[in-house]
Amino acid sequence: MSRRSQGSVPDLVERARAGDPRAVARLISLVEDASPLLREVMAALAPHTGHAHVIGITGSPGVGKSTCTSALVTELRREGKRVGVLAVDPSSPFSGGALLGDRVRMQDHALDRDVYIRSMASRGHLGGLAWTTPQALRVLDAAGCDVVLVETVGVGQSEVEIAGLADTTLVLMAPGMGDGIQAAKAGILEIGDLYVVNKADRDGADQVRKDLRSMLALSDLAEGSWKPPIVKTVAAKSEGIDELAAEIARHHDWLESSGELAARRTRRARDEVEAIAVTALRERWGDVHGRSELDDLAAAVAAGETDPYTAADELLDAYAD
Amino acid sequence: MSRRSQGSVPDLVERARAGDPRAVARLISLVEDASPLLREVMAALAPHTGHAHVIGITGSPGVGKSTCTSALVTELRREGKRVGVLAVDPSSPFSGGALLGDRVRMQDHALDRDVYIRSMASRGHLGGLAWTTPQALRVLDAAGCDVVLVETVGVGQSEVEIAGLADTTLVLMAPGMGDGIQAAKAGILEIGDLYVVNKADRDGADQVRKDLRSMLALSDLAEGSWKPPIVKTVAAKSEGIDELAAEIARHHDWLESSGELAARRTRRARDEVEAIAVTALRERWGDVHGRSELDDLAAAVAAGETDPYTAADELLDAYAD
Repeated sequence: MSRRSQGSVPDLVERARAGDPRAVARLISLVEDASPLLREVMAALAPHTGHAHVIGITGSPGVGKSTCTSALVTELRREGKRVGVLAVDPSSPFSGGALLGDRVRMQDHALDRDVYIRSMASRGHLGGLAWTTPQALRVLDAAGCDVVLVETVGVGQSEVEIAGLADTTLVLMAPGMGDGIQAAKAGILEIGDLYVVNKADRDGADQVRKDLRSMLALSDLAEGSWKPPIVKTVAAKSEGIDELAAEIARHHDWLESSGELAARRTRRARDEVEAIAVTALRERWGDVHGRSELDDLAAAVAAGETDPYTAADELLDAYAD
Repeated sequence: MSRRSQGSVPDLVERARAGDPRAVARLISLVEDASPLLREVMAALAPHTGHAHVIGITGSPGVGKSTCTSALVTELRREGKRVGVLAVDPSSPFSGGALLGDRVRMQDHALDRDVYIRSMASRGHLGGLAWTTPQALRVLDAAGCDVVLVETVGVGQSEVEIAGLADTTLVLMAPGMGDGIQAAKAGILEIGDLYVVNKADRDGADQVRKDLRSMLALSDLAEGSWKPPIVKTVAAKSEGIDELAAEIARHHDWLESSGELAARRTRRARDEVEAIAVTALRERWGDVHGRSELDDLAAAVAAGETDPYTAADELLDAYAD
């Protein structure tokens, strides 16, 4: 058994595609650990990718992201779809562990073979989501998920990053969170494809929607572009989730018909290829033949003997051969 | 007049070194605008850098960073030092403007020729502080500042980034801010060289210090390493600021005697050189001879025709010649 659960890469990929959750788990672990096998894994997965609709879910802590994600999973399962959930904790690059982890409601789906749920910490990765998440998405995509929900704890830049990863970005708000100015500050009004006013049975929900509508109205929309709808939900009671799922489907249709789906995915692949190339270069710069050209140049810059631009030129010249 | 205020680069650098605030302002604007002149500016500044003690000041909104910065400026001026202040707003990469800007207390120093104060938005720059701030620091350093205070609005990753820039990092806290768990989450307990419990005349200040002390005690310290002190201040009344300045000076002495100052500055230069080299490469990848190799590769990855690692290899090979 344990021998089989290790498995070769082709075997793991085959089993993941057949829906074996342990194979999927193992492949995502290889991503998280930045395994040397990743090159082989990604090459084996590539022909099977491009099917899943990736939906990013973001918003401040307390707006009900996990509850909403869980309710959406239920709705998507009702439609017969295979669903993946990545819950990303952009925890400290230093502390080495996710402080948040109570995704209790997700346990509703724990026994469903057609729902794959995974928490990931983005710790240690420059740019947070930039590195591990797209590769974990590839695993779930190749494993046959129709939809992958990426839920992120809304802290700092992560809301903006998720928009780069997703085909469709949901921004959640709730009454009494003072979200308006926060949203403006975080640039969140420019990333949402759909806005969700959750906890809509509470006082102030209509005001949140009104504020949101007037803030969104300020941005000019070109002819034929997508006008982000605002959906009211009470995720804890599954209210409004059917309408939300319908709006998500409508956005997917628009993405396909407008050509924006291909454009977004090419942009996402571009960022990913660039990040991998830059990381490879950094490794080369950092340690070649036991010494580091970069360290020598940095010492010269720190001593005022040269400037950073000249040093960067020398670094690039040194590796152009 | 206007002709002179434009000035050639050598002229601008000469005037900045003589303490002309308009020349300093113009050079920092060149940094903010990513001017093509920057290469020449940085080459001219390099021989005059390495003198200033760079102090980073971070903490959650509301702990009194601006007040504390202003009180420190007063104290440092009393010691006859030339002081630069960079107030960095890591505002949205999208909104294009800093929403925070009320640095009213700084006006106390507005007429002092030996204090140079500048607000900078880190908008639009990948990695926030990573790009513009080190170059603005070079300007202030070469312009003869003995100390440069870099104050950042504590949002997301900026606390961690500032620690990479500064020789000495101050982390501010205040009673009633619920800072403990926030600090642990933000990784802030691993970046402070000095901790400041500001608003220490309020209830709960001793508790904040006690909590902080026990959290700091958890981290193991090697022999001869710096043990971060905790200083209580009431910055609005200038209480404790003399002790804070003394601890900052003590940290500077330790940095020099331990060799850590040179190590930190080499590390900072390393990050800066690397960032410039990566940016230059990205520009090459993005647009060469009117077409983009990277775009073609990204489209192939998005279509599942290749995987991102193979594409990254091809990208690097294409520019190795």
